[in-house]
Amino acid sequence: MSQDALQALRPLNALADEDVAVELPVALTVNGVSQAVMLASPTDLQDFALGFGLAEGWFTSRHELLGVEIEPRPEGIELALTVTAACEQRLRARRRTLAGRTGCGLCGLESLAQFGALQPAAVTAPVLAAGALDRALAALPTAQPLNARCGGLHGAAWCRPSGELVLAREDIGRHNALDKLTGALARRDADLRDGFVLMSSRASYELVHKTAMAGIGLLACMSAPSSLAIETARRLRLQLWAFVREGRATRYA
Amino acid sequence: MSQDALQALRPLNALADEDVAVELPVALTVNGVSQAVMLASPTDLQDFALGFGLAEGWFTSRHELLGVEIEPRPEGIELALTVTAACEQRLRARRRTLAGRTGCGLCGLESLAQFGALQPAAVTAPVLAAGALDRALAALPTAQPLNARCGGLHGAAWCRPSGELVLAREDIGRHNALDKLTGALARRDADLRDGFVLMSSRASYELVHKTAMAGIGLLACMSAPSSLAIETARRLRLQLWAFVREGRATRYA
Repeated sequence: MSQDALQALRPLNALADEDVAVELPVALTVNGVSQAVMLASPTDLQDFALGFGLAEGWFTSRHELLGVEIEPRPEGIELALTVTAACEQRLRARRRTLAGRTGCGLCGLESLAQFGALQPAAVTAPVLAAGALDRALAALPTAQPLNARCGGLHGAAWCRPSGELVLAREDIGRHNALDKLTGALARRDADLRDGFVLMSSRASYELVHKTAMAGIGLLACMSAPSSLAIETARRLRLQLWAFVREGRATRYA
Repeated sequence: MSQDALQALRPLNALADEDVAVELPVALTVNGVSQAVMLASPTDLQDFALGFGLAEGWFTSRHELLGVEIEPRPEGIELALTVTAACEQRLRARRRTLAGRTGCGLCGLESLAQFGALQPAAVTAPVLAAGALDRALAALPTAQPLNARCGGLHGAAWCRPSGELVLAREDIGRHNALDKLTGALARRDADLRDGFVLMSSRASYELVHKTAMAGIGLLACMSAPSSLAIETARRLRLQLWAFVREGRATRYA
């Protein structure tokens, strides 16, 4: 997001200078049609639009997303996505069968039958070097400057199998932080089999799902896993680590 | 939830005995019509159904909810709510204008125009006794037995102005934990002006909104507030405390 765009957002949020994590409604439209609204931190929104769309199966590749306009509105921010005609047609067909699908990949669903309709392919985990999780963990705080200032933000980091932290994104929502990271990686055409994701949060189902949708084979989280996260990771052959803390970590799948 | 119902759920979740927080898709239907699906911890689901429905404005009082059946399904759990005819008509009228509204009170929305459509009335905060937040905070861990065993669960507690912790609920999702608590309080016809809510989580917009929807005037959270939470609390005259930790807390609204 450009400095100009950030300046334009200032009046929306009188508290922006008070070292409080900014949270705003962010609406995504695709070729003019409303798709979803989320509460998010208004940073790296180009990355977010791409990562969210890939996680939701809107795009089959980053090249289907032709552009993103960031437009301040009285109520929040609109991310106006322009996509290819083929992508627009696919989305229109899905809207007929999946009314309301949004957000965390689940809570726009209206019935249990819709749950699990979008299945990522199985993934392959990289081989971690000894001490890789410790090294990545030690590098995470400096990669989260917003959280250091305000607190309350989650971090998602892309790390090499050696543990070197390459890229990180922050958001008030852990799903958004991961979407921003996978979007940023997609824009760089990164080789997603050659690394892993470290998250500052607990290991939820949605994070496992989004990681696998991005084609990443290993997810490490600082806090506890849920049962559904573990089951999903096992099914998708995703290597799941939780309780990643200094000098220790538990492998669940 | 009865022990029988819990037993029936066992096969759904092979990990239930491994001290991992159970997370399952929970679908709410109202008089047979699908309304929403959320990931939740399968405890206190009667409380959850009532609290969620009140927070979403489905019910104007607890007496509109006539019954809740908890039905295990292959994909998760269905909460089949039976409501009065007047309530069903109101919901049907809302569905025509608010397709997809669900979950955290936001992320089923499709456009920014829908954001803020459901506005709670302003609330009145109770007067806290000296040291009340400290007392409530000290009592919270013992009120979260699931979290003590598994980790990864949020707690929502109802406390007297003196700081005495009266009732607590747990869930893998902080919104769900609060819905369970407000539902449990509604079932007890508790006087909601005479106490406050303490949450183990950060202070998000949705928690402020849900607290005010329940008619509660004070919310205290252990972690950071967001800008939108603070603004919303100020508008609704809700007293908002964050970073509630041993011996200190910050008042934001």
